[in-house]
Amino acid sequence: MSSCNYKRTVIHSTEMFEIVSIEWNNSDLSDFHDHGPSQCMIKVENGTFENHLDLGYKTELQIIETGQVLSTPVGAKHKMRCLTQAGKTLHVYSPRIKDNPDEARFYIPSLSKFCQEINLSDASEFGNLLNLLDQVRNHSISVHSPYFMNQLFSGISPLTLLAQRVISETKATLATYEASPALTAIESEVIEALGELIGWPKNHRDGVVVPGGSAANFMAIHCSRHKSEPAIKTAGLRGERFRIFVSKEAHYSFKKASAVLGLGTDSIVSVAVDSSGCMNTSELKALIEDSRKDSTPLMVVATAGTTVRGAFDPIHEIADICQEHNIWLHVDGAWGGPALFTSQLKNLVSGIERADSVAFDAHKLFGADLTCSFFLTKHKDLLLCANDVSGGEYLFHQADVCLDRGKLSWQCGRSADALSFWTIWKSLGTKGLGQFVDELISLRNQTLSWMIDRPRLQLISMPTYLNICVRVIPPDGQVDIDWSKRVRESLRESNLAMVNYSHDDNGTFLRLILAHPFLKFEHIQKILQHALAVK
Amino acid sequence: MSSCNYKRTVIHSTEMFEIVSIEWNNSDLSDFHDHGPSQCMIKVENGTFENHLDLGYKTELQIIETGQVLSTPVGAKHKMRCLTQAGKTLHVYSPRIKDNPDEARFYIPSLSKFCQEINLSDASEFGNLLNLLDQVRNHSISVHSPYFMNQLFSGISPLTLLAQRVISETKATLATYEASPALTAIESEVIEALGELIGWPKNHRDGVVVPGGSAANFMAIHCSRHKSEPAIKTAGLRGERFRIFVSKEAHYSFKKASAVLGLGTDSIVSVAVDSSGCMNTSELKALIEDSRKDSTPLMVVATAGTTVRGAFDPIHEIADICQEHNIWLHVDGAWGGPALFTSQLKNLVSGIERADSVAFDAHKLFGADLTCSFFLTKHKDLLLCANDVSGGEYLFHQADVCLDRGKLSWQCGRSADALSFWTIWKSLGTKGLGQFVDELISLRNQTLSWMIDRPRLQLISMPTYLNICVRVIPPDGQVDIDWSKRVRESLRESNLAMVNYSHDDNGTFLRLILAHPFLKFEHIQKILQHALAVK
Repeated sequence: MSSCNYKRTVIHSTEMFEIVSIEWNNSDLSDFHDHGPSQCMIKVENGTFENHLDLGYKTELQIIETGQVLSTPVGAKHKMRCLTQAGKTLHVYSPRIKDNPDEARFYIPSLSKFCQEINLSDASEFGNLLNLLDQVRNHSISVHSPYFMNQLFSGISPLTLLAQRVISETKATLATYEASPALTAIESEVIEALGELIGWPKNHRDGVVVPGGSAANFMAIHCSRHKSEPAIKTAGLRGERFRIFVSKEAHYSFKKASAVLGLGTDSIVSVAVDSSGCMNTSELKALIEDSRKDSTPLMVVATAGTTVRGAFDPIHEIADICQEHNIWLHVDGAWGGPALFTSQLKNLVSGIERADSVAFDAHKLFGADLTCSFFLTKHKDLLLCANDVSGGEYLFHQADVCLDRGKLSWQCGRSADALSFWTIWKSLGTKGLGQFVDELISLRNQTLSWMIDRPRLQLISMPTYLNICVRVIPPDGQVDIDWSKRVRESLRESNLAMVNYSHDDNGTFLRLILAHPFLKFEHIQKILQHALAVK
Repeated sequence: MSSCNYKRTVIHSTEMFEIVSIEWNNSDLSDFHDHGPSQCMIKVENGTFENHLDLGYKTELQIIETGQVLSTPVGAKHKMRCLTQAGKTLHVYSPRIKDNPDEARFYIPSLSKFCQEINLSDASEFGNLLNLLDQVRNHSISVHSPYFMNQLFSGISPLTLLAQRVISETKATLATYEASPALTAIESEVIEALGELIGWPKNHRDGVVVPGGSAANFMAIHCSRHKSEPAIKTAGLRGERFRIFVSKEAHYSFKKASAVLGLGTDSIVSVAVDSSGCMNTSELKALIEDSRKDSTPLMVVATAGTTVRGAFDPIHEIADICQEHNIWLHVDGAWGGPALFTSQLKNLVSGIERADSVAFDAHKLFGADLTCSFFLTKHKDLLLCANDVSGGEYLFHQADVCLDRGKLSWQCGRSADALSFWTIWKSLGTKGLGQFVDELISLRNQTLSWMIDRPRLQLISMPTYLNICVRVIPPDGQVDIDWSKRVRESLRESNLAMVNYSHDDNGTFLRLILAHPFLKFEHIQKILQHALAVK
């Protein structure tokens, strides 16, 4: 800012907006406009300017001339430079996401007053309502901060906010084509593009948007069962004993799904993992053979990116076993699916094209709005057969049944979630999304190097993806199984960061998730330095 | 506008925003600011003003003085009046929802060019991306228009858009309390308030937000099954033959759910309806008794507001039968649940307090964001028992399990949809929501009176709710079973309106849904006049 030489005149400034006129007298790149992720609209009144738009995932360079206007979305940052001898610009700022580290909240000590005020019954004046919505924000966790590493997602992308406004304003319901033509096309396009990336042949790409990764895994069991025994759809289960094989570190949603689907949690068979958390395929083979005595092996789940360690099960080996036994192969790529986008990691999901179905969450690593999940399958028409029933004639009017995407789902009205990922993908391209993953992998490597000289930070296993699981050893070097949990609580209570924890036989450990589009090594370093300093 | 006498100076005007200074010299109420539903921010530089804020559902009066600022959300309208001899205000407008009737789109003839442009692979510059998102809007159906009567919802509420921005910016995932404290409290509050309205005792109110009304009905079957046979959760179905009784005009989601849950669509028993579309309880009794021969009656569904005719099944009579036979009673109030909010209609849902569970959609009549659906039950802890499994220890850290609402669901990450309805409810109050329903009922009555003298508009049955089902007789008075469908297509193709159609034994008929917050009798009249004029 010190390098700038311009005159800034605030025309009007209030809590809601600020109008500023700026006269530029040199051509230094200014970081003045690095004003936090507010929405801003700029009109060039005189001169030529260079604008560096920073969307987190990527930056873009724009040139704007006299009379032109540019706008940046909420959540983006930018810097401007005047290319002419002098220039004049008018700026309008609207409220920004509160992303100042000093304002971050990772721990809300009490909700009691808040809970009193949110009670429902009497009407509230509009001004008061705005205050209450601000309180909702103030009592929420700062997901937009790079210090938020608690979930398998982090950060609020300006692209996501743009898409969400279109989703809300169009209120497209993905049941029928006639009510949501454009968004039906968008959902189809994203599913087609994901199917292509997986490597399925052109006429074997199908899928549907589902409400979360758990729902995608749920749909996988449902579809595999329908393929195996289509009569269940009408007659119901008649005592069949299906078995579904998942690694011991697979997501708990398979258990939930099996209970709801009427198969029972006993149908889930846990397969041992190796020291890195990858499925032991010899044990898988043995368990499948053993299960044949009294049951039908229905599905094997290869997890691409486990929840805690980010481990990838060996898909090719598992596919060989599924092929031999004629079992449905489902890849749970809710977290690790983004490996498909970069050649650096593509080996982790090698063989995924042999899967019968794949789960993919765009609201995790790729930062789409919650939820933006895809169930994908190479069995064309299976979703239709498994889910379509009579009785919706008042709603479905298309001669081409595939146009009415509600028929592919057990839901009716569905939100146009696909637009959120489409907007991000369209903006960055496949290559840009891959680079985003690559940059996070570089950050991970930098972190691992930094940890080498710090023996009190013990890796649980060598990361292959973006989870760093690390046990913090107390300063006195003694065993304390709860120490890492204590570190985690200290990080929260000091409002520095939010990092989740898990445990193994040796006690608790931290799980750092690298996912934020604006993440820098300094953020990770600060967290780990705090971890070492806890007493 | 002619009554105004003020000087309007446009300081800056572009596609993205407009800054205007206004000098007021009289104190007439101005409709100048009825500028369509853009977002607008106003600062009073001098004087005292009265502002009439129109949120669609309700209007509010605000007084603003020198130095004060007010803002109106996207989708709201307002009028201002200067109360002092003279005054000066500064206005900033940002882009509005395109709700001009001339811009409404109810029919998108072709998507071919659009489909080429939405393809994924290469990155798109930010400016181009904004254009593409505009194309998504331009190729979408005008849900915000009062002439949109095709779905069981209509209109985009400014309150909804405000709430949705908070939902997106906080990215609260309703799985755990620690990651979403405020929105966990909001979800709990809305469920508690709905339970109270239903009439369940204080310690018997439980529920969870689910992705759509179909998902709520799905959860009802799942929970009733768990209550009946808890061992199914672990062991799976072992040939039990459950039966679920629904009216012939109930929603098709029960069939879908029974297929997915492993019960099979054969488990759904359709009960005849009377001439108004209400369940015939004598037949229900007979069917239950008959089913006992070879199966277990699990659940009866009383629909409160059927999809096509808006009929309400007699809940008390059905509750008596359920009580006698010890069968779970589920009320599907996805569409008709709002009857709970007004004494005028409360008789339609009399007996709902006897239900074991209720489905309620706030994204339908009450205009919340899609989807905002509630599954409600009076069996405390049943959701937890039916859905919780082991394996989520990495995620769920609360000693009080009920704080982590993910445990009540078969989903994991869930969007904070409840905030959308909470914002509307908090703004209007229970009474305001009831008045909104009452006003729509008045509009319906006005429409019915107008139809009396127009014998070519034949009611399918006398409406009790907000569906007007009407068969249009051709000008020549001849029977044409497809005439109403033709009328519907004419309304769409002329871009006048979008109204759905259904059919009975006598052919097709129109279904008008009264739900838009800005709906006026003139809108309905114009649609019906067009219907009569089709040749």
